Amino acid sequence: MNDRPVVLLAGFEPFGGETINPSWEAVRALDGQPSGDAVVAARQMPCVFGAAIEALEAAIAETRPTLVVCVGQAGGRSEMSIERVAINVDDGRIADNAGAQPIDTPVVRDGPAAYFSTLPIKAIVHALRDAGVPASVSNTAGTFVCNHIFYGLMHALARRGDGTRGGFIHIPYLPEQAARAAGDAPSMALPTLVHGLRIAIETALAVQVDLRETGGRIS
Amino acid sequence: MNDRPVVLLAGFEPFGGETINPSWEAVRALDGQPSGDAVVAARQMPCVFGAAIEALEAAIAETRPTLVVCVGQAGGRSEMSIERVAINVDDGRIADNAGAQPIDTPVVRDGPAAYFSTLPIKAIVHALRDAGVPASVSNTAGTFVCNHIFYGLMHALARRGDGTRGGFIHIPYLPEQAARAAGDAPSMALPTLVHGLRIAIETALAVQVDLRETGGRIS
Amino acid sequence: MNDRPVVLLAGFEPFGGETINPSWEAVRALDGQPSGDAVVAARQMPCVFGAAIEALEAAIAETRPTLVVCVGQAGGRSEMSIERVAINVDDGRIADNAGAQPIDTPVVRDGPAAYFSTLPIKAIVHALRDAGVPASVSNTAGTFVCNHIFYGLMHALARRGDGTRGGFIHIPYLPEQAARAAGDAPSMALPTLVHGLRIAIETALAVQVDLRETGGRIS
Amino acid sequence: MNDRPVVLLAGFEPFGGETINPSWEAVRALDGQPSGDAVVAARQMPCVFGAAIEALEAAIAETRPTLVVCVGQAGGRSEMSIERVAINVDDGRIADNAGAQPIDTPVVRDGPAAYFSTLPIKAIVHALRDAGVPASVSNTAGTFVCNHIFYGLMHALARRGDGTRGGFIHIPYLPEQAARAAGDAPSMALPTLVHGLRIAIETALAVQVDLRETGGRIS
Repeated sequence: MNDRPVVLLAGFEPFGGETINPSWEAVRALDGQPSGDAVVAARQMPCVFGAAIEALEAAIAETRPTLVVCVGQAGGRSEMSIERVAINVDDGRIADNAGAQPIDTPVVRDGPAAYFSTLPIKAIVHALRDAGVPASVSNTAGTFVCNHIFYGLMHALARRGDGTRGGFIHIPYLPEQAARAAGDAPSMALPTLVHGLRIAIETALAVQVDLRETGGRIS
Repeated sequence: MNDRPVVLLAGFEPFGGETINPSWEAVRALDGQPSGDAVVAARQMPCVFGAAIEALEAAIAETRPTLVVCVGQAGGRSEMSIERVAINVDDGRIADNAGAQPIDTPVVRDGPAAYFSTLPIKAIVHALRDAGVPASVSNTAGTFVCNHIFYGLMHALARRGDGTRGGFIHIPYLPEQAARAAGDAPSMALPTLVHGLRIAIETALAVQVDLRETGGRIS
Repeated sequence: MNDRPVVLLAGFEPFGGETINPSWEAVRALDGQPSGDAVVAARQMPCVFGAAIEALEAAIAETRPTLVVCVGQAGGRSEMSIERVAINVDDGRIADNAGAQPIDTPVVRDGPAAYFSTLPIKAIVHALRDAGVPASVSNTAGTFVCNHIFYGLMHALARRGDGTRGGFIHIPYLPEQAARAAGDAPSMALPTLVHGLRIAIETALAVQVDLRETGGRIS
Repeated sequence: MNDRPVVLLAGFEPFGGETINPSWEAVRALDGQPSGDAVVAARQMPCVFGAAIEALEAAIAETRPTLVVCVGQAGGRSEMSIERVAINVDDGRIADNAGAQPIDTPVVRDGPAAYFSTLPIKAIVHALRDAGVPASVSNTAGTFVCNHIFYGLMHALARRGDGTRGGFIHIPYLPEQAARAAGDAPSMALPTLVHGLRIAIETALAVQVDLRETGGRIS
């Protein structure tokens, strides 16, 4: 990867009884691909509290990225969700892949209550919709390993203080997962997901000052 | 088309302010394609009460199909919906493309209250899920032009009495439609839709006696 | 009950693991109450294919009603649903209270595919909304015991041919059920349900020709 | 109110085209009521960025409460939502009642990214469900005036540093609002809301150390 800037894309291993995780399938399809002047490095994270952040920090140390985007599965959502904020709490509705189910413990002891994404989240949503990819801003990344790694990422980047930007994107099930799920679960095809992530990265690299466009919710 | 049996696939023109209709995009991709020994003929129907049934009857007279599958857009649904039943009522929540909005009038005066699909709906859902395409049986095709043409189709086939089978499949928005829609609308990519319709046709041609598998709903 | 006309209100026993059924709680609160010149007779039906229709026919023979309204639980719905149509199929997603789970068998062998409600469904929805009770027309009563008894009712009334009217209303969970349910289940308080049923009956007794107001759905 | 501790309950004026706000209807029903040793003081807040926090601070100065619970309308939700966290951003999807629609501006310049509720949120959810009131923890209060006042409240209490606790509860539409809304909107009856708020207050007054029970979400 020589001197080209690196975009680190982190996806997750399967969890919750699934045999596949759309986040890993989507990010690995971009591994080694160029994005403007940069090149993408995709890495798989364990769906385990604590170990996920360690793996992410190791990948950051290894790849020295200028941009870090973590991606996770949000079963039940219809759109790509560009997350706005990570909160300092772990509260597992289910156990993680190592059997741990923390309840109301902080991600980082004495850390701030939350970190905001430093991605241009409005510009990303705008670019995705323009490209025909359903997307919206989300104001909660939940309280499971996705929020955990998102908080850990933003905490690590804040401590580095070198301006490296980062954030989190939740994506729907793949069609093959929705086909097996009970009920009427929405999904997104892998090519749409890969196309969407490519646009999100390009937008994040290109846009320094975010758009002033509402992405808010009343509740 | 010589002596090969014909599968008539009917899709709709756009309606309700949309500039595209996924049903026409999906069925026209299969026009002229083989399906087993048969060949597909795709035709576009107007989203107009009355005229839709006339256009369908003309297409049946023209193509002399052994199987007829009508396909329509169901904005808000996440899965391919294999419709079970058409009811003898028009009740437009919006006006059709000719400005008509019938309320509680029969599709066919003195027609029976309903017709059941003669497709093997359970076998189709089973085959779609096996192929990784989200699908389920639906017990209502609504009361707009989709239900209207479905009822008209089954009424026409019943009068012919030659065993030609037919039915209706509702499909989600395309991603580009969901990207423009307000709210968190589910969608399905065009290749998934085309793949799903191909499987539905093949299953309908191959299966004479439907699977005995629940596809029911409590309410 | 002497010479006053009788409105027969049928509710169901609990099913599907519930210990209470809002339909029985609501209808029994109206038992013996006047509605205009008429009086309400409430009866509980078993949640059992076959036996439900037998119990309803016995209650009709006993009470000789001028109006019959069956009421059932629709867990997951937010509003009172005035059902438009009953279809001639049993397709149990779960077993009934006697352990039977019919799949794709007719409610009545050689019966018509469907019967429409003979209640003024649009006028009822209009009156309920005016009174502040959330309500809408529904185009499917499912394929479980609710649709079964609704079809059985309309078949029995059609054979009598004396103009007795009937129909079916689906109602949400009670709050106490939703409080125990997984997920974010909507509910309706018992006083709202009782108030709504009272309005529905009064409207059905008063209105002979239904309103011409859309209650349709696109899909 | 003499020497009895005061619980300040803040509800909102109507917004978004509504003529009623369930939060004000519910809290005013408790005004002057006892809750254990304490007494409730209910106050109405304007649905206006900035002015809402000023009104709340004035009410705190006036009533010197030991507990402050703000309550707001969450149209579309089915349950009472006990909010976990307030974030430092205003992002109006619609304009407030004074016509302002801030986008991505902080509630408090240089304030922390978020504050956690200091109510025992898990104990409140547990007590509500036990009492048959549908309830859950929510991880987002949106980005409109509800989140705004919630953040302002927690910021004010943090600066006082006297241990006064506070938090926010979102509640569904009233049935009469849902009856007028498009679509299938869930609602909750006023007596259920009042009963639920009474339980929430009692629980907040009685419980110092929250339950360790999962209330988390995966996404």
